[in-house]
Amino acid sequence: MIDQRLLPGDFKILSYDQFQDVAVAIQSMVIRGAPAIGAAAAFGMALAALQSNAETKNELNKDISKAGFLLNQARPTAVNLSWAVQRMINETKGFPGSVSELRQHLLEFAKKIADDDVEINKKMAAFGAALIQDGDHIIHHCNTGALATVDWGTALGVIRTAHEQGKHIHVFVDETRPRLQGARLTAWELEQYGIPYDIITDNAAGHLMRRGLVQKVFFGADRVAANGDVANKIGTYMLALAAYDNGISAYCVTPISTIDFELERGDLIPIEERSQDEVLGLSLLGQPTAPENASAKNPAFDVTPYRLISAWVTEKGVIRPPFRRNLEGIKEG
Amino acid sequence: MIDQRLLPGDFKILSYDQFQDVAVAIQSMVIRGAPAIGAAAAFGMALAALQSNAETKNELNKDISKAGFLLNQARPTAVNLSWAVQRMINETKGFPGSVSELRQHLLEFAKKIADDDVEINKKMAAFGAALIQDGDHIIHHCNTGALATVDWGTALGVIRTAHEQGKHIHVFVDETRPRLQGARLTAWELEQYGIPYDIITDNAAGHLMRRGLVQKVFFGADRVAANGDVANKIGTYMLALAAYDNGISAYCVTPISTIDFELERGDLIPIEERSQDEVLGLSLLGQPTAPENASAKNPAFDVTPYRLISAWVTEKGVIRPPFRRNLEGIKEG
Repeated sequence: MIDQRLLPGDFKILSYDQFQDVAVAIQSMVIRGAPAIGAAAAFGMALAALQSNAETKNELNKDISKAGFLLNQARPTAVNLSWAVQRMINETKGFPGSVSELRQHLLEFAKKIADDDVEINKKMAAFGAALIQDGDHIIHHCNTGALATVDWGTALGVIRTAHEQGKHIHVFVDETRPRLQGARLTAWELEQYGIPYDIITDNAAGHLMRRGLVQKVFFGADRVAANGDVANKIGTYMLALAAYDNGISAYCVTPISTIDFELERGDLIPIEERSQDEVLGLSLLGQPTAPENASAKNPAFDVTPYRLISAWVTEKGVIRPPFRRNLEGIKEG
Repeated sequence: MIDQRLLPGDFKILSYDQFQDVAVAIQSMVIRGAPAIGAAAAFGMALAALQSNAETKNELNKDISKAGFLLNQARPTAVNLSWAVQRMINETKGFPGSVSELRQHLLEFAKKIADDDVEINKKMAAFGAALIQDGDHIIHHCNTGALATVDWGTALGVIRTAHEQGKHIHVFVDETRPRLQGARLTAWELEQYGIPYDIITDNAAGHLMRRGLVQKVFFGADRVAANGDVANKIGTYMLALAAYDNGISAYCVTPISTIDFELERGDLIPIEERSQDEVLGLSLLGQPTAPENASAKNPAFDVTPYRLISAWVTEKGVIRPPFRRNLEGIKEG
């Protein structure tokens, strides 16, 4: 894995051979982004199978279920994590071969989850790029690119594909406090792809919209409820609200695996509260930015109500409102 | 002046005896906050009078008018700057005494502008504190306290008065990117006053509102148009919009001197674009936060449409919507 905590200053690859370390890497955000977390968890499960001394498939199943329990604790909001863990567990059920064949199969299956993610991203990118016009200025929130996925990206993958189609686009990269995934990671990716951009503070998004300088807003999702409400990186709600207030389309780019069909509405999604150091550990032009004993609240995600979202871009097509009804159509299609 | 760029790390007092240096201090944000800028500009004009070699009142008027032109350039958005400059110039017109008496008078008059500001703040604070209930959690944007004014403060002055009245309140201090006046200055002031607070990222405001954790929103103004639109620190618009979306009252605390009666609506207010270093010169937990050659846009203010504001708190009373009609009533009253 690329250690995303060090970008854009340092580029460092970390390797893991223990599933416990993978859980820590997810928790501490060495790796982040809902689809990337899903793939990492799948490989974590494969590692758990390799680590296990189980001599029967039943024992192996028990060991990897325990590993899955630990991996699931790492981050609570993104559904891809538990989705990937569950898919790996399902593979053990009724597996016809030997224990060692099952170990091998789980590794192959983790690779398949990762490969599928790339293919799914490319499909979403194709559907989403059709929504972008030549000359568009786009606000993008957080990081949803190759770093957040196995490769290519969700919302940023759409932008990348539009760029490769020859559309002239410009991205306002909102910095995405507190961890600045926009300024640190998305800006870094856009430089690799040669897409012009400017970093803005999250606060500036609404002003640029009011001045007519923005045509589209794109973001990803950590979990989508059955009614279309989107849990995503903190700040998405205020961004989508400003887009709505200015008649600007706001698009959520999300694989079907991120939709939690069991969850009626977004306010039921657990919101991770992270360390206050992420808010307070900042310095600006060399100066400390908060009093020494200051305390902070740091919710990592928020919920954007479906009413603020213009469309959800999935690998099966673009879902326009009403989400619930049109999702049914796309699932069947 | 307290050098506000160094807070909360260092507390340093700077003195000036040249109006040109006062203009630089305003431009570089040694001093900031619309009312404080107004008072600083008045003293800058008094300094210009002391610096001038004029032997007639006409010559003195010319010299300080030139100084006023320079001071007016320092920052374009807050109306208090040009308001204070104009008041100083008006004092020279028809002045009955000698040139040296006029120099002395201008210094006295600058002191009066500063003293008036404190008195006006206390009146606003009394009107505004009546809007706060015991137990309220309040989001406050930017810094509007003693540091932003001559003393006491506008929006933060209201909070301070409510606290002194014995109301138990808690403040969510939004950090206010890019210059972090919330995290750096408001948090520092609240510690001095013993008012409990937590710092939040600007992105988190909407989430806290949706979860029912916020009862009121308070902010100041750099310029209010005749229709009630408010130009204020960047991010105010998105904050007020989130308050509106959640049925939470958003109050603008503003002296009458900040109202620009000549300006029909907020979109005509010039918005200062500041250096991209304020956006890019950040480090988080010791890491750089943007690629080395990244570019940024940095509008310093935005405009909040009057429809999102629950009331404007002035030294003459609380103006409820419709602003234009009720402002007339208060001006006459």
